[in-house]
Amino acid sequence: MAFFDLPLDELRRYQPAVSEPPDFDAFWAATLEQAERYALDARFEAVDFGLRTVKTYDVTFNGYGGQPIKGWLMLPANAAQPLPLVVEYVGYGGGRGFPTEWLLWSSAGYAHLVMDTRGQGSVWRQGDTPDVAEGSSPHSPGFMTLGVLSPETYYYRRVFVDAVRAVQAGRSFPLVDAKRVAVTGGSQGGGISLAVAGLMPEVRVCMPDVPYLCHYQRAIEITPSGPYQEIAQFCQVHRQRTEQVFKTLAYFDNVFFATRIRARCLFSVALMDEICPPSTIFAAYNRITAPKEMRIYTYNHHEGGGAHHDIEKIRFLDAALADH
Amino acid sequence: MAFFDLPLDELRRYQPAVSEPPDFDAFWAATLEQAERYALDARFEAVDFGLRTVKTYDVTFNGYGGQPIKGWLMLPANAAQPLPLVVEYVGYGGGRGFPTEWLLWSSAGYAHLVMDTRGQGSVWRQGDTPDVAEGSSPHSPGFMTLGVLSPETYYYRRVFVDAVRAVQAGRSFPLVDAKRVAVTGGSQGGGISLAVAGLMPEVRVCMPDVPYLCHYQRAIEITPSGPYQEIAQFCQVHRQRTEQVFKTLAYFDNVFFATRIRARCLFSVALMDEICPPSTIFAAYNRITAPKEMRIYTYNHHEGGGAHHDIEKIRFLDAALADH
Amino acid sequence: MAFFDLPLDELRRYQPAVSEPPDFDAFWAATLEQAERYALDARFEAVDFGLRTVKTYDVTFNGYGGQPIKGWLMLPANAAQPLPLVVEYVGYGGGRGFPTEWLLWSSAGYAHLVMDTRGQGSVWRQGDTPDVAEGSSPHSPGFMTLGVLSPETYYYRRVFVDAVRAVQAGRSFPLVDAKRVAVTGGSQGGGISLAVAGLMPEVRVCMPDVPYLCHYQRAIEITPSGPYQEIAQFCQVHRQRTEQVFKTLAYFDNVFFATRIRARCLFSVALMDEICPPSTIFAAYNRITAPKEMRIYTYNHHEGGGAHHDIEKIRFLDAALADH
Amino acid sequence: MAFFDLPLDELRRYQPAVSEPPDFDAFWAATLEQAERYALDARFEAVDFGLRTVKTYDVTFNGYGGQPIKGWLMLPANAAQPLPLVVEYVGYGGGRGFPTEWLLWSSAGYAHLVMDTRGQGSVWRQGDTPDVAEGSSPHSPGFMTLGVLSPETYYYRRVFVDAVRAVQAGRSFPLVDAKRVAVTGGSQGGGISLAVAGLMPEVRVCMPDVPYLCHYQRAIEITPSGPYQEIAQFCQVHRQRTEQVFKTLAYFDNVFFATRIRARCLFSVALMDEICPPSTIFAAYNRITAPKEMRIYTYNHHEGGGAHHDIEKIRFLDAALADH
Amino acid sequence: MAFFDLPLDELRRYQPAVSEPPDFDAFWAATLEQAERYALDARFEAVDFGLRTVKTYDVTFNGYGGQPIKGWLMLPANAAQPLPLVVEYVGYGGGRGFPTEWLLWSSAGYAHLVMDTRGQGSVWRQGDTPDVAEGSSPHSPGFMTLGVLSPETYYYRRVFVDAVRAVQAGRSFPLVDAKRVAVTGGSQGGGISLAVAGLMPEVRVCMPDVPYLCHYQRAIEITPSGPYQEIAQFCQVHRQRTEQVFKTLAYFDNVFFATRIRARCLFSVALMDEICPPSTIFAAYNRITAPKEMRIYTYNHHEGGGAHHDIEKIRFLDAALADH
Amino acid sequence: MAFFDLPLDELRRYQPAVSEPPDFDAFWAATLEQAERYALDARFEAVDFGLRTVKTYDVTFNGYGGQPIKGWLMLPANAAQPLPLVVEYVGYGGGRGFPTEWLLWSSAGYAHLVMDTRGQGSVWRQGDTPDVAEGSSPHSPGFMTLGVLSPETYYYRRVFVDAVRAVQAGRSFPLVDAKRVAVTGGSQGGGISLAVAGLMPEVRVCMPDVPYLCHYQRAIEITPSGPYQEIAQFCQVHRQRTEQVFKTLAYFDNVFFATRIRARCLFSVALMDEICPPSTIFAAYNRITAPKEMRIYTYNHHEGGGAHHDIEKIRFLDAALADH
Repeated sequence: MAFFDLPLDELRRYQPAVSEPPDFDAFWAATLEQAERYALDARFEAVDFGLRTVKTYDVTFNGYGGQPIKGWLMLPANAAQPLPLVVEYVGYGGGRGFPTEWLLWSSAGYAHLVMDTRGQGSVWRQGDTPDVAEGSSPHSPGFMTLGVLSPETYYYRRVFVDAVRAVQAGRSFPLVDAKRVAVTGGSQGGGISLAVAGLMPEVRVCMPDVPYLCHYQRAIEITPSGPYQEIAQFCQVHRQRTEQVFKTLAYFDNVFFATRIRARCLFSVALMDEICPPSTIFAAYNRITAPKEMRIYTYNHHEGGGAHHDIEKIRFLDAALADH
Repeated sequence: MAFFDLPLDELRRYQPAVSEPPDFDAFWAATLEQAERYALDARFEAVDFGLRTVKTYDVTFNGYGGQPIKGWLMLPANAAQPLPLVVEYVGYGGGRGFPTEWLLWSSAGYAHLVMDTRGQGSVWRQGDTPDVAEGSSPHSPGFMTLGVLSPETYYYRRVFVDAVRAVQAGRSFPLVDAKRVAVTGGSQGGGISLAVAGLMPEVRVCMPDVPYLCHYQRAIEITPSGPYQEIAQFCQVHRQRTEQVFKTLAYFDNVFFATRIRARCLFSVALMDEICPPSTIFAAYNRITAPKEMRIYTYNHHEGGGAHHDIEKIRFLDAALADH
Repeated sequence: MAFFDLPLDELRRYQPAVSEPPDFDAFWAATLEQAERYALDARFEAVDFGLRTVKTYDVTFNGYGGQPIKGWLMLPANAAQPLPLVVEYVGYGGGRGFPTEWLLWSSAGYAHLVMDTRGQGSVWRQGDTPDVAEGSSPHSPGFMTLGVLSPETYYYRRVFVDAVRAVQAGRSFPLVDAKRVAVTGGSQGGGISLAVAGLMPEVRVCMPDVPYLCHYQRAIEITPSGPYQEIAQFCQVHRQRTEQVFKTLAYFDNVFFATRIRARCLFSVALMDEICPPSTIFAAYNRITAPKEMRIYTYNHHEGGGAHHDIEKIRFLDAALADH
Repeated sequence: MAFFDLPLDELRRYQPAVSEPPDFDAFWAATLEQAERYALDARFEAVDFGLRTVKTYDVTFNGYGGQPIKGWLMLPANAAQPLPLVVEYVGYGGGRGFPTEWLLWSSAGYAHLVMDTRGQGSVWRQGDTPDVAEGSSPHSPGFMTLGVLSPETYYYRRVFVDAVRAVQAGRSFPLVDAKRVAVTGGSQGGGISLAVAGLMPEVRVCMPDVPYLCHYQRAIEITPSGPYQEIAQFCQVHRQRTEQVFKTLAYFDNVFFATRIRARCLFSVALMDEICPPSTIFAAYNRITAPKEMRIYTYNHHEGGGAHHDIEKIRFLDAALADH
Repeated sequence: MAFFDLPLDELRRYQPAVSEPPDFDAFWAATLEQAERYALDARFEAVDFGLRTVKTYDVTFNGYGGQPIKGWLMLPANAAQPLPLVVEYVGYGGGRGFPTEWLLWSSAGYAHLVMDTRGQGSVWRQGDTPDVAEGSSPHSPGFMTLGVLSPETYYYRRVFVDAVRAVQAGRSFPLVDAKRVAVTGGSQGGGISLAVAGLMPEVRVCMPDVPYLCHYQRAIEITPSGPYQEIAQFCQVHRQRTEQVFKTLAYFDNVFFATRIRARCLFSVALMDEICPPSTIFAAYNRITAPKEMRIYTYNHHEGGGAHHDIEKIRFLDAALADH
Repeated sequence: MAFFDLPLDELRRYQPAVSEPPDFDAFWAATLEQAERYALDARFEAVDFGLRTVKTYDVTFNGYGGQPIKGWLMLPANAAQPLPLVVEYVGYGGGRGFPTEWLLWSSAGYAHLVMDTRGQGSVWRQGDTPDVAEGSSPHSPGFMTLGVLSPETYYYRRVFVDAVRAVQAGRSFPLVDAKRVAVTGGSQGGGISLAVAGLMPEVRVCMPDVPYLCHYQRAIEITPSGPYQEIAQFCQVHRQRTEQVFKTLAYFDNVFFATRIRARCLFSVALMDEICPPSTIFAAYNRITAPKEMRIYTYNHHEGGGAHHDIEKIRFLDAALADH
């Protein structure tokens, strides 16, 4: 079927029973505290890829476990005073690529930091950051089940810490106004944005597009497509560890980060999206108590709102950060 | 097979026997002359999509048959004197979309005109320009066989005329240096670039990526993928009109435009490209007598060189137009 | 799933809320009136394809905008007095082909006119009639979105006018009994039959097989297969024009023609049909107030009843037109 | 969808209305009585495939119509006194293969007879037993519609008789304890196990894995995958014989054998199994009144419980036959 | 690749080394002699499917082993004197269907007998004739490996005998001129036509379209598509019987029947046909010494020449049998 | 094409130009020396999975970097004196699973050690051994590009060391005859077997089935299927690192291990194998100077010789180790 998920009116009020780990906040507090033991040490090296209207820096900062994480920082070439900051996270399988691929936000007048996703960046857009796993277990090809048998070793623990520190790195740049910070990204990038907004109350705006990493269990049960299926594949082989897998994932599920978000939110969702099914996105969205808007792309698949939505986002962000 | 075309050493010297229509130049001279009967009337309306570092104009000019063709013109916001111009054509099925999708060349300091492709722009990137056919015949879904029973009515006759006039439109803009013009594009956009360079000796640089519209007959016979197959489909149904089809296509084949090109050329080709097979591209490339370079992406498919190649192109163009 | 649509008992009573354009009748009255300004000028040229038991004519008449439309007229070779007429329309992508492909109805003793579908006939069965668009807009490959931004320019406006005039052309032939006319066709041909029966009260019998062009919006939302998806594709790209698209389609939806039909109807439907989902067909069927029968093929896909149903149709038509 | 069948709680209580043929028992009594007219004549020829810990016999016995059926009998090499017997049936398309492929049950201390499935064994594991059809009709490729127009000529009548006689053959071997017999198999092998358990009250244990041949009609209507679709294909072509087909299948449907089973049962089911949908398995399971257990593999497809479940089965069987 | 077989110039002279069984003629002589022991007993029962211009008979005759084979005989309704006869065989998986599906040759003035293919007719067009196998062995789904371990038991031995007797049946009909007989058919029907022409020197014309059953071994090795792969599948499982399989197939390979044909031949071939690769067809064609013509459809797949070629065939047959 | 690689006669003499790293032996000597710094510490814990004829031990030994590697050791239950040892490696994506899946060699009278492959075992057969990477870089999903930018960090460096030490672990078991050791495995397991035989001259027999990890570059260029494509994918994204990738792979290519093998070899190859193309296997096989045999499975894909070949291997091994 083209529409394979709930009808729109049910999506709007979809509130599935989910069971938050009692130590969810404790887990993340400990995780972030442990991360703080490593100095951030954000470095910004000016680079020249032939661009004239924007100025580009090759960024390195210490992420999870003090491991170096790469990124790009881009600003209007003529910026003279602190600019609001957009931190962007990348979709699954992609990396930071080259600055020529990230011209939108700096062209729109923002400081823009793109974070490389550790280990990724060899499926479609090039990445430059290794992932150094701590403890591990067999896993399905991909990152979704890397260390999944325990929250401490799960891959996204490292990623979410990196992502929080990417915001810190961006805020440390002289030409950035640390009080006006937005996070954004599509798919996995949207999922990371939500987690960061849940972990950092100082984030002012959160703009996730067709976000991933929401309500994993339903996703696996409703769609045979996309990287959620890496988890299904793991459970198919490790049949006796299914419960353990979902116990771990609960610490990384945006249905739980959602209730902690204080940022103004602009979501996008596509009703025919078989990669990030709409009900998994509404499951997170419907739990957000901060000001929020949802743009619905009725006949789209995982491409979501595309350039139409980019323009929406610029308008939304201009308005949201105007009142600084 | 992963490599399905000729080995690289054979590609480099591939010179298939092709039969140029004796009135090729006459056909195009008449076509362009007829086009000139309509005033170009290029209009540039400033538009605001939230971009700050570049200035954007919604372009309309009169293309084939005097029909209005849309485009975007983008320049660095602070441009004070005439800039070299890059005219870009779009890949098959796409349209001009939004300015936010076209930030590369203006950010690199060029005036950049993107031409909408008539009729297209409803498969992946939005288009805004209708195609008004003159005379016609049944056709396969798509544009490849639209009017294919005669060179006069063939779809690409209208497109190539539009493309020539897009260059004229760009050159008419005050902040453009009409002596420094490059054409570029990927796939169909690369194919159109080659044709324009063949038709306009004043074009200084031509940078086609994995270009389409080269050596149609071999393409149809070597690959079952991509839009070349629309032609095969037409021939499968209209079995008795095969010869007539190829007679028309000869007027639009870049193996013939190639010998007429005076511009400095930078090609890209991907050796696993099943959409635009490498031998079809070398068939055109090997006939060019102007200065030329070819970037070979060994393990890539139709995505070609991606952002890696964009950076190559900026370097190439900066160097090629430096000596103005 | 094999059954992907509503259960049969729900199909039988399926009455979706649909919103008829208030000027539906006015639009069609104006359209047909405008068509009448062009003389029909039906021409019948005897042709010889080696057939002995039937006599064949190559038909040309002036359809929409006075444009020439092709067809075949076939009758039993020994016909001596006026015969009842079957006008047949072709499925999507096909054309009139050759008389050897259309032997059924003349062999069964009827005059049989097959109308070529403008522009089509290059996907599976050869067509010979161009489509001359009036005004246009970008469109997805295929015909479903050709001119879809306005009812006046939509492709099927031209097709339905052609189809009405095909009946007029057939009735003008000396050996045809103009009072006994049936329309039929499969898939798109069935959809056109329904529209013609809705526009021409003088049509006595309507036999649509697995008809297309019924309840477009549900079709797009329930099936990812078949040409309905051209509309979805258009809406995916032109995200902001979705409402406008469906506003246009309402004038061409058989759920609205259905209530106007006066002919005796024989439908066929296949419960596993992913091209023309059963609910879209029942949505039209259930609104018909004329005498009607539905043949249900439980385990069939879009092939429907095949030759089994052809025999049903001969029986039905013999009976329906016996009482002239 | 990944989950395409009923939710688990509905599966657990799924009791579809089914209509048992009034002469179901009479049909099978007559069938088995007729089979008894042929001497079983089980022959056991010792063979050497290089195995040392198990002893292997090439088995031949007279099955349906006295036709010779092949199998393997394997026992621990040092067996000194009668062992409990496991009779195993093979999945669709496979045959008995080689003894090296069947080491599990003899290594676990059981006598193990594997029955070749007549006619099959040319799709994945080699078979050696022809099927001699009695009377026939056209059929779809495969065995599912072989002789399906009448219960007397249906392929599985012959198979089920063979399967009953395989148990008799195994029990006739000197080192087998005829009072401790289990039947098992995966997919088709599980379906045959259920039928045998329904026909032979003396079978003590029945362990069907993801069994096939349950509730055919729902299977055909809910899944487009797997060999059930051979029946759909037959009905698609022989549209007028659909009712007759299902009338035949009723005599071979495990929803009816289920109520007759006296053996202790261990089922497995996989909730994403598109070959043997879970509801068809629960339809049989829920009607069993003997002691029974179901192992549910939530995220598995037709591979079901794999080696995890083999270990479950050894444990279950050890326990079930311990109390002899 | 779109062209996956030899280039056309190599196809035209393709003469692979093949090894004819020394007793090829003896085998077929014995087979036909044995067949003659059963009376043909052709019965013709007039039937009414609503057709008026042609008269239809339901045909039954005794084929291989005296088993009843079905067919249709159709003639122009007004035929008054003996007509030339076209015997047609059906493509793989199809059956005789209904007379309404076979109007071409009778409408063209011929007597036309369509033979049902034993066992087939449940994949696309309905069949009514069972296959009664004599001896057998396990086989892959389908008919290609049924009894393939010996020429005596191979399925096509029965089919080719049926086919010879279908010609005899047709010739026995009063309104048939037994001296003017043609055989034809597409794919499997073409393959059978060639075998019949090889076995019956009295056949005057042979018109195989994209014929199957030619040079099996190359077919299996060059294409992964279509029913030839049933043989590959069998050999994949029965790895040790590969040589035996090809030894059997040699008796049924049209490369050997080809040299025995005396009929005037019209072949068709499609250069992109992955079901019946062109080299396998040329392998047979190039060995024919009788008058022959080949129609080449360059860009077609297994659909071959379609209706275009039907018209060619009518012309060819009219000419070939004109000089009786 | 079904046959997509070189013809068999060319395969038999295929000797591609390959360029061995000058420090190949030095690299491996240093690697093994470094490995020796960690004690092997092989532990054998008896486990009970219900098997009676074989005795099973859960094995743990210290592999690369001293990291614990899992395995199973299985022997005939009644073994009284040292047995020859078969060490088996697993195919890509699988793990050691359960002892019930590995009954062949112990049932055939051998001691049998199955090594778990680090990190793998979550795609089809369960694994229990994590991979602890040392240094890393972004990688494509899967293991083929894990650490591929340097021989020191490449994943298979760790695996090959584990594999050598698995042999050492097996030889340390009391009931194993350390002088009679064979290595075997299918696909990746075959590739590892070759590397181990190349690294350990004391290995007496090497039986790789359809081995992987041979002549990577040709594999990538000739087949689009299977895990070799992970490398292509990496090169597609990291376009500038292609040379570096192949420089690393050279240290892990069995075309170089082949010349160092002293063991008696039994290979299998399947001519239609698109995962491990036959030419890549012959490229290694043809360079072996030790006694060797090749079994060719003509019509098989990656399933190779299956159970037929298992029986060949038992015979071969019995004979090869008889002369101890």
